[in-house]
Amino acid sequence: MAYKKMLVAYDFSDSGEKALQKANELAGHDKAKLHILHVVEYLPPVDTSFGAVSPFEVDLTDQLVESAKSRLASVAEKLGIPKEQRWVELGSPKLEIVRVAEEVGVDLIVVGTHGRHGFGLLLGSTASSVVNHALCDVLSVRGKDE
Amino acid sequence: MAYKKMLVAYDFSDSGEKALQKANELAGHDKAKLHILHVVEYLPPVDTSFGAVSPFEVDLTDQLVESAKSRLASVAEKLGIPKEQRWVELGSPKLEIVRVAEEVGVDLIVVGTHGRHGFGLLLGSTASSVVNHALCDVLSVRGKDE
Repeated sequence: MAYKKMLVAYDFSDSGEKALQKANELAGHDKAKLHILHVVEYLPPVDTSFGAVSPFEVDLTDQLVESAKSRLASVAEKLGIPKEQRWVELGSPKLEIVRVAEEVGVDLIVVGTHGRHGFGLLLGSTASSVVNHALCDVLSVRGKDE
Repeated sequence: MAYKKMLVAYDFSDSGEKALQKANELAGHDKAKLHILHVVEYLPPVDTSFGAVSPFEVDLTDQLVESAKSRLASVAEKLGIPKEQRWVELGSPKLEIVRVAEEVGVDLIVVGTHGRHGFGLLLGSTASSVVNHALCDVLSVRGKDE
């Protein structure tokens, strides 16, 4: 395959775990640089003209990002992924995966996919959107069917 | 990676060619069985209550399938893919790729993707539909952007 730079999208789920393992094997085999990305999908409460939507004036974004960073760090540490190859971004996974892949200039994205039932399929999965928009190859790793 | 049985969807296009090369390398490396599939996307002229839509009462389906079989055979021959691992099916690529993958019981589908512009993106690509519906991993190999 001879991929040189890979990005694995990791969402702390079971199917993310499978994708991470595959990406790690593949990177080890191809002697490729493996970047790891977690996207925090969180919309902070927005002030409206009627006041804050949230009952408390608290924005959890920073805490969520910090907590994701430390979870990702412990996973990355085990796999020997150095700090400069770890990414935590805030926003839409579909968009952030493609954006970071382009920024880093990877030639393979590895992403987990969930089962083919339910709303996920109806709305279109993150993986299929990444396939449609990425400029590089994409390996979609199938998780367990729910 | 250690995939044991792979299916590559080959549409005789440039991006199909890239997918075929990747699949062949990967199969050689993993010592996996590589199946190759071409889907003939052809709707034969249908008789309506006003008579045949086609000016000639000719059904080209058989010729198209035969021609695809011989083109596929010459490609498969070069790669050493034996006859029982060659598939030519008539219908929708999205559906046939997933169906044949399940019938053969492959653990990886390799499929080419075209550029991210134009109608293809609007309608959703074959690759992204395969990602949504396949029961196994899918490697989408990016072709040149048109």
